[in-house]
Amino acid sequence: MTLRSALHTAYPWIKTPLIASAPMLRIAMPPLAVAVSRAGGLGFLAAGYDVATLETDLEHAARLVRESDPPIRQAPVEKGVLPIGVGFINWGADLTASLEAIRKYTPCAVWFFGPVSQPDDLIPWAKQVRAVTSGRTRVWVQVGSVAEAVAVAEALEPDVLVVQGSDAGGHGLARSASVISLVPEVRDALAERGFDNIALLAAGGIVDGRGVAAALALGASGVAMGTRFLASHEATIAPGYQAEVLRASDGGISTARSTVYDRVRDIHGWPRRYDGRGVINESYVDAVERGMADEENRRLYVEETMKGDAGWGPKGRMTTYAGTGVGLVRDTLPAGDIIKRVLLEADETIKRLAGERSDTLLTLP
Amino acid sequence: MTLRSALHTAYPWIKTPLIASAPMLRIAMPPLAVAVSRAGGLGFLAAGYDVATLETDLEHAARLVRESDPPIRQAPVEKGVLPIGVGFINWGADLTASLEAIRKYTPCAVWFFGPVSQPDDLIPWAKQVRAVTSGRTRVWVQVGSVAEAVAVAEALEPDVLVVQGSDAGGHGLARSASVISLVPEVRDALAERGFDNIALLAAGGIVDGRGVAAALALGASGVAMGTRFLASHEATIAPGYQAEVLRASDGGISTARSTVYDRVRDIHGWPRRYDGRGVINESYVDAVERGMADEENRRLYVEETMKGDAGWGPKGRMTTYAGTGVGLVRDTLPAGDIIKRVLLEADETIKRLAGERSDTLLTLP
Repeated sequence: MTLRSALHTAYPWIKTPLIASAPMLRIAMPPLAVAVSRAGGLGFLAAGYDVATLETDLEHAARLVRESDPPIRQAPVEKGVLPIGVGFINWGADLTASLEAIRKYTPCAVWFFGPVSQPDDLIPWAKQVRAVTSGRTRVWVQVGSVAEAVAVAEALEPDVLVVQGSDAGGHGLARSASVISLVPEVRDALAERGFDNIALLAAGGIVDGRGVAAALALGASGVAMGTRFLASHEATIAPGYQAEVLRASDGGISTARSTVYDRVRDIHGWPRRYDGRGVINESYVDAVERGMADEENRRLYVEETMKGDAGWGPKGRMTTYAGTGVGLVRDTLPAGDIIKRVLLEADETIKRLAGERSDTLLTLP
Repeated sequence: MTLRSALHTAYPWIKTPLIASAPMLRIAMPPLAVAVSRAGGLGFLAAGYDVATLETDLEHAARLVRESDPPIRQAPVEKGVLPIGVGFINWGADLTASLEAIRKYTPCAVWFFGPVSQPDDLIPWAKQVRAVTSGRTRVWVQVGSVAEAVAVAEALEPDVLVVQGSDAGGHGLARSASVISLVPEVRDALAERGFDNIALLAAGGIVDGRGVAAALALGASGVAMGTRFLASHEATIAPGYQAEVLRASDGGISTARSTVYDRVRDIHGWPRRYDGRGVINESYVDAVERGMADEENRRLYVEETMKGDAGWGPKGRMTTYAGTGVGLVRDTLPAGDIIKRVLLEADETIKRLAGERSDTLLTLP
């Protein structure tokens, strides 16, 4: 069975190449996750590092799925499987508390990210999730290096590896390659070890169909997109945040990787190998260019939270996590339209490449 | 005329997609440049920031071109045009000293990079090079952001922009996106301003045909490769350096961006916006993790130069500039075989994508 067929079998409603929406904390809530799956993608609900509301959120998602018109196509064998995934931030999420909700709602996938120890801490997660759902909940793991990919493959045999490159918004490895070299090197390393059955999704800097076609060329079966879905109607997001995503351009210059966005918000659980990419704002400039101490920077951040939507922007202090693809995001759309547009553009891109190929052949050695 | 046709007209010996070899300082000398052009790529000679040997090097290249068997295909109109390019590091290279050599040998292209002021300092370069060769030497400029691309396009109208992403080895912008988002954002920004006639070459992290196919999907007309040609027979490179390129894997982890490699070698001319990506070694660890002062680090570097090839490696101190694609480079080959293999793999990749496309259509909305 090809990787593509395997994905279709596991998630019968998807169109290929597979487009997953990333489980962005507090943003990827049931409306976004269900809208993405309804449009033929795979939507992820963010459970994050505190799973207190997971059961309520899954109940909400289940209701949206039941009310979906047209219904989300599922094979009879998946009766009871919720056609969305759940993303965990594993350094903080509690396994026992999560398992009951997973058993009850059987999301089609879980997406693990950010354990203190990679892959060791994920072994009980994978084992117990598979046990309580009889394997109907598939295991996805996000990695950012070849070493992580190989270690996770050997320890867990996940169904999917989300291969995150340096362009990604939000948290990721502080030091990593982009998908341009990371995805092919991971693909080769897995092939050498007999893991051809693990699908790769490329993540980081991909916001349109050109990026999707590139990801397929590199050896991925699809993509995970975060930044693009920040500008979707169904994202749970402050208007100020969304406006900043539309404003920012030249993503490699207007965003930067840093731990400052966690420090000003008093978030301390991330293992040291991670930082996060966000649009440069006053918190960043104060910390990195002006050498401001965290305490003062945090005080200014807390003050800024009173400003509402005006707190976002280059002169603001609210965090705008976004990837380098932010400059390619120019409109807010329904998530379903994003999926349609990206798939269509990917297809047109491949058609263009195939057309150019016939010229190429004339000049090949 | 399509971009592809324009490239064929300017450089009649090339196969498409165009593969250029980057003008790597002291490594991309006449044997590599001519071997790349002979195989249907576009080879660049590194003039660097000190052009004292430029005329001698061009004479050497001209001789290799004359002796080339089979000859490098050129149209009668290009009589006297040397079918290789010359790469300048513009913060240091002397324009007047360079012009005489350019006039005499008429390389098919010049590649500008690293002026103190971008694009202002390049305006006299572009104007005078075009004047002394009646436009037969084409102007290429390397950029690392959308802002640079637009400014250079407006100031110089170059024939080619080399769009360098964060994965590239050696010098580049300290902060930038990878080609995955940079190339499409540059392509769109140029199109909006009527610069559809400027070809883009993607650079950074591309070492095989999958990367080339990805670059084409993103909107480039070809690629510039550096790291892959470090492991070519024709590179002028220490065996210790080449061995380290073959050894290093997991390029996002084993390499890092830093200015330390310049500091230990007493190279001080690079404008502050640049640093360089190299394989992590003791110079890097001492500077970044152990807080060693530059003076001591430089002293240890100078000592290390006495060790010959043993000075390279993770425990050595000789600089191994390389991009994140270094883990995909596993063999040393003749440059011509690299070009053949990469073009073939790019073509196979596009064939694979086109084949998968027919399945996709069945499931498109």
